[in-house]
Amino acid sequence: MSGTTELTAAALMPADEATREIAEDLYREVVDAPIISPHGHVDPVLLLEDAAFPDPSSLLIRHDHYVTRLLFASGVSFADLGLDAARPAEPRAVWRRLAENWHRFAGTASGYWLQHELASLFDVRSELSEANADEVHDRIERVLAEPGFRPRALFDRFRIEVLATTDDPLDDLATHRELTATGSVAGRVIPTFRPDAYLDPAGAVFADRVDALLDATGRPGSFDGYLRALEDRRAHFLSHGAVSTDHGVLEPFTADLSADDAERLFRGAREGRLDSDEQRLFRGHMLFQMARMSVDDGLVMTIHPGVSRNHHEPTFAAFGPDTGHDIPVRTEYTQNLRPLLNAFGTAPGFHVVLFAVDETVYSREVAPLAGFYPSVFIGAPWWFLDAPDAVLRFRSAVTETAGFYRGSGFIDDTRAFLSIPARHDMARRLDSSFLARLVREGRVSLPTARRIARDLVDAVPRKAFKL
Amino acid sequence: MSGTTELTAAALMPADEATREIAEDLYREVVDAPIISPHGHVDPVLLLEDAAFPDPSSLLIRHDHYVTRLLFASGVSFADLGLDAARPAEPRAVWRRLAENWHRFAGTASGYWLQHELASLFDVRSELSEANADEVHDRIERVLAEPGFRPRALFDRFRIEVLATTDDPLDDLATHRELTATGSVAGRVIPTFRPDAYLDPAGAVFADRVDALLDATGRPGSFDGYLRALEDRRAHFLSHGAVSTDHGVLEPFTADLSADDAERLFRGAREGRLDSDEQRLFRGHMLFQMARMSVDDGLVMTIHPGVSRNHHEPTFAAFGPDTGHDIPVRTEYTQNLRPLLNAFGTAPGFHVVLFAVDETVYSREVAPLAGFYPSVFIGAPWWFLDAPDAVLRFRSAVTETAGFYRGSGFIDDTRAFLSIPARHDMARRLDSSFLARLVREGRVSLPTARRIARDLVDAVPRKAFKL
Amino acid sequence: MSGTTELTAAALMPADEATREIAEDLYREVVDAPIISPHGHVDPVLLLEDAAFPDPSSLLIRHDHYVTRLLFASGVSFADLGLDAARPAEPRAVWRRLAENWHRFAGTASGYWLQHELASLFDVRSELSEANADEVHDRIERVLAEPGFRPRALFDRFRIEVLATTDDPLDDLATHRELTATGSVAGRVIPTFRPDAYLDPAGAVFADRVDALLDATGRPGSFDGYLRALEDRRAHFLSHGAVSTDHGVLEPFTADLSADDAERLFRGAREGRLDSDEQRLFRGHMLFQMARMSVDDGLVMTIHPGVSRNHHEPTFAAFGPDTGHDIPVRTEYTQNLRPLLNAFGTAPGFHVVLFAVDETVYSREVAPLAGFYPSVFIGAPWWFLDAPDAVLRFRSAVTETAGFYRGSGFIDDTRAFLSIPARHDMARRLDSSFLARLVREGRVSLPTARRIARDLVDAVPRKAFKL
Repeated sequence: MSGTTELTAAALMPADEATREIAEDLYREVVDAPIISPHGHVDPVLLLEDAAFPDPSSLLIRHDHYVTRLLFASGVSFADLGLDAARPAEPRAVWRRLAENWHRFAGTASGYWLQHELASLFDVRSELSEANADEVHDRIERVLAEPGFRPRALFDRFRIEVLATTDDPLDDLATHRELTATGSVAGRVIPTFRPDAYLDPAGAVFADRVDALLDATGRPGSFDGYLRALEDRRAHFLSHGAVSTDHGVLEPFTADLSADDAERLFRGAREGRLDSDEQRLFRGHMLFQMARMSVDDGLVMTIHPGVSRNHHEPTFAAFGPDTGHDIPVRTEYTQNLRPLLNAFGTAPGFHVVLFAVDETVYSREVAPLAGFYPSVFIGAPWWFLDAPDAVLRFRSAVTETAGFYRGSGFIDDTRAFLSIPARHDMARRLDSSFLARLVREGRVSLPTARRIARDLVDAVPRKAFKL
Repeated sequence: MSGTTELTAAALMPADEATREIAEDLYREVVDAPIISPHGHVDPVLLLEDAAFPDPSSLLIRHDHYVTRLLFASGVSFADLGLDAARPAEPRAVWRRLAENWHRFAGTASGYWLQHELASLFDVRSELSEANADEVHDRIERVLAEPGFRPRALFDRFRIEVLATTDDPLDDLATHRELTATGSVAGRVIPTFRPDAYLDPAGAVFADRVDALLDATGRPGSFDGYLRALEDRRAHFLSHGAVSTDHGVLEPFTADLSADDAERLFRGAREGRLDSDEQRLFRGHMLFQMARMSVDDGLVMTIHPGVSRNHHEPTFAAFGPDTGHDIPVRTEYTQNLRPLLNAFGTAPGFHVVLFAVDETVYSREVAPLAGFYPSVFIGAPWWFLDAPDAVLRFRSAVTETAGFYRGSGFIDDTRAFLSIPARHDMARRLDSSFLARLVREGRVSLPTARRIARDLVDAVPRKAFKL
Repeated sequence: MSGTTELTAAALMPADEATREIAEDLYREVVDAPIISPHGHVDPVLLLEDAAFPDPSSLLIRHDHYVTRLLFASGVSFADLGLDAARPAEPRAVWRRLAENWHRFAGTASGYWLQHELASLFDVRSELSEANADEVHDRIERVLAEPGFRPRALFDRFRIEVLATTDDPLDDLATHRELTATGSVAGRVIPTFRPDAYLDPAGAVFADRVDALLDATGRPGSFDGYLRALEDRRAHFLSHGAVSTDHGVLEPFTADLSADDAERLFRGAREGRLDSDEQRLFRGHMLFQMARMSVDDGLVMTIHPGVSRNHHEPTFAAFGPDTGHDIPVRTEYTQNLRPLLNAFGTAPGFHVVLFAVDETVYSREVAPLAGFYPSVFIGAPWWFLDAPDAVLRFRSAVTETAGFYRGSGFIDDTRAFLSIPARHDMARRLDSSFLARLVREGRVSLPTARRIARDLVDAVPRKAFKL
């Protein structure tokens, strides 16, 4: 077989030999460190059930919209990927689609992770191709059947110390409770409070969600009651180990409304009669309220703004959300977050982590904000920017203003449980590579670089997420 | 003479020696590949007449607004450049202006191309300077007089396989027909349908152009007749080998109007009574209609947005357009193109190539769009971004999301016929350099990098432009 | 002690050995060149009084809001930094705060400059740490007491040829006059006309400032009188050696109003009854008028746009401006500057230097503008962008369009007198590094690179600032 995907110590290391030696030295400091994953989308049921993983294409293709989107863009239909419920595809046929399009993933983040997983988890030592598609498929199937390849065993093998999931405010968190009770994995699996659907009056389910929230908590239907209800659920999450809340918004707009205005907009929102400006104002006030609650209860706030979801309506109508056509838009932080930061930016213990898919904000807005406000932490490169070159651009853009200690630490943000070690390993290699350049350029001493490398996988995420 | 501009195998190759060796290896795969130029501005009459080129300054300075703009910015008047019809300048004096300002072009794309042309076409082995200005001028004059230096001979020597021109919808394309009929060059010279003046009611000539279009096609003066007239001319272009249409717009705004609204705006546009919002809406609807026609007739659509033309009104008034003061502006793609992509983004066979002069859109908008929509292709770095560092930034920004196969292939987009090989050679060196880094960093295997290098100058542009 | 901050010839040099050798060669051309500092914020009284510097923390921490902001973000209170007048802090305790947080400055521009100053001025050869904080403090104190460490002696030792200060239009410039009269330093100390408070009707002091200006000049209270008054003060600055005016604005918006409109807005501005649109229009017209005056009197215009000042109102209320929470915003140049450039962009002798904290404008707007308009010069990377990686990104973004000769030369823009050599040295190393890469990549010849390196610290700033 031509080519090789064998992982070497040199992967993602700097081209320059002298710099590479420093990078490899730094990487050795962190290669075996436990994984702290304070934000992600793994389903906790996976760990509770601890069932064997299904076939290779279910595991590595069908549920990874990073992978399916590029195959779709390359001309492979959703049906051929097994995504059309009405026309099921043979799993091995789906796998062959990936193999014959493998060159299209060269240079992509998804391609790098898949290559890493094939090599490190399944000992596939050749590059995937049409020629070896079946052979690789068979090999993966064999490994999936091994008892040591169940989710819990992998959790421990991956050395995961903390894994945060993302959960609906009304989730009873029984899965998390059982997981903790059974002590089935060595690390902690903690929930994250994600109330988007409860905060955005433009969403189709807003009124229903508010009703359900008030029902579940027994709070009255006033704006104040609704705030209390949210606080109740946050308390429930806190008592189950949650350390953070997460907020996906189109823009990080915030507003501080009077009690009367908030009450009036809340009523209008429930009755579906707000115009788009009023909806925006209400959303902005709710993000502000979330910060206020974080000051009170200590939950770290993470904000993921700037993605226009479900860009292609026909695909959304046919296949639902998370099908590969969420597209970033330009995003503004400095003015949008000003009300929130004026009110809470220096409040003791308040933490807000700012993520971005618009990389222009790194040097212009996010690093300067994090270079002053003790509450602001710079989110690791997210989504489309969670890739080798983008990570180095990010480090270059933020470090000169904010240093290495105002960040979130690496965030894998993944649904793909198997990709977690590949992603964290990528981050460790890249941080080693970036630091090595600064050492080589006489900007950071080697002992300090070593300390930073270790802190980036340990003290830094623990600080940002209060772990 | 001090300095040398001698081209070496190392030009534009990576600094790191180990990476450089890989890059040179990859470059050898493509150095002799034929040139595919699916979008540009060479006048086909040049090839039909096949006359000797005029003097060096006419050839290399006066008609290249990349060059004249920087000389003008450096304090050389348009008159001294021979651009003021009322005050003709001696060609040799113009050439001396370039020579004495040659250091100002160091590090620029124009400087690199000129240096490449001087070395490879005219065997000038020293750096241009005041001291050797006359000697170099004489040498170029001698070469220009050689029979082997006529346009057709160069066309074959450059190994051009396809050269697309850019043409007015009412062009009868006789020049292209004759060129094809005579078989005078080995490759194909094909037209491109460029209807800007017919689609923008804010343009001074809009009403005239619509009248002329309706006259020429005999279609009625309704909006429907006007659409039919445009379709007629596209069919004429198709029958002359055209593969694409080109659209220069300030923003890639698109809109899908009702038949009644379109009719009403069309009438208003012809009578010059639309306000700027209505003009925008009409332009957006016409871009939408162009996509609709592309779905029907198969012509690839290319969009070149984001340039504010003729920034300095006094220069425009005195010297006309294309005089060096077209300045980019921030551009939005995600929302602007949504109507078009919702309607046609997954239509079979539809291709739309998105160019940009705002490089912030590469990672944020264009790569994510091309990473999902099978119809969207990422245009090569354009205009101010068509330069070594900018090309590498482009590759870094788009590849991790969209890979190497969702692009247009290199586009020279030039009026300067002689610069075509220099530009394509630059692209090949840079792609080899970029790929070599990924190989060195363990991200792409060498065999796959070889395949990609070859595909980038062959399969990729053939796919995007249906060649 | 572990670690070393000893400066070596390799600091900020390229990682690649072959490129590094070229860079070191180029750096040797400029390492000893005099410092030209045409824009900055050193207080001229410092030089006139020529007193010994106070303690280390006053000198290096308390008055440098680059340093205090990151300490504040790291959890050190303003009181602990000695910034709270009501609760003075012991200087040595402040110094210890820096030492214990020193790792947080790794990779930042401030950290690099401090390290450079500690090594080159105080011969501190170990990395600052909690362990050596007192020892380093003592050493600095000893040096500060030496007679050769007074401001004037350092001015000469730094080889400063020109140092521009920034001054209020009503400043009588007596300090500058005395400095010149005494001939106490070898170089020139010149004022800069900074009229922001006199041009922005949204500022709290606008009406007062206008009254004071009219009083001081004896001009009538009409708009015309006010313009004459500004011209009078510019003439005063010119007669004291000023070469430029400086303009800090949120956006570089310009407008050319009729005399009547200007008169009407001026009256409204003085009476505090303009709405925000009218205030913007008036500001835009005043920036336009400043350009008009520059055409007349020859003062170079510098524009520093794009920073939202005093983001955190509580900190501003308690500690005043320049306390670390000025945050950049997205900025537009192409359309905003069009009225100004249409009127004066090609006026003989007019110079306008465009600075930016939004690095997206470099390739998109600023370099294209400077690539055409002879009046437009590209400002050196400013504020958050005045750092090693950012400087290289800047060079990469502007050079391919505008070359090396359309820039301002390096601008230190600093209040911190002691940091001036560190900053200029940084710029020289980075320019050598950037040029070396172009040489290594076959894009610029070594002799031309040498010439450019020398011009960047000499001919280029002299040209831009008419020195």
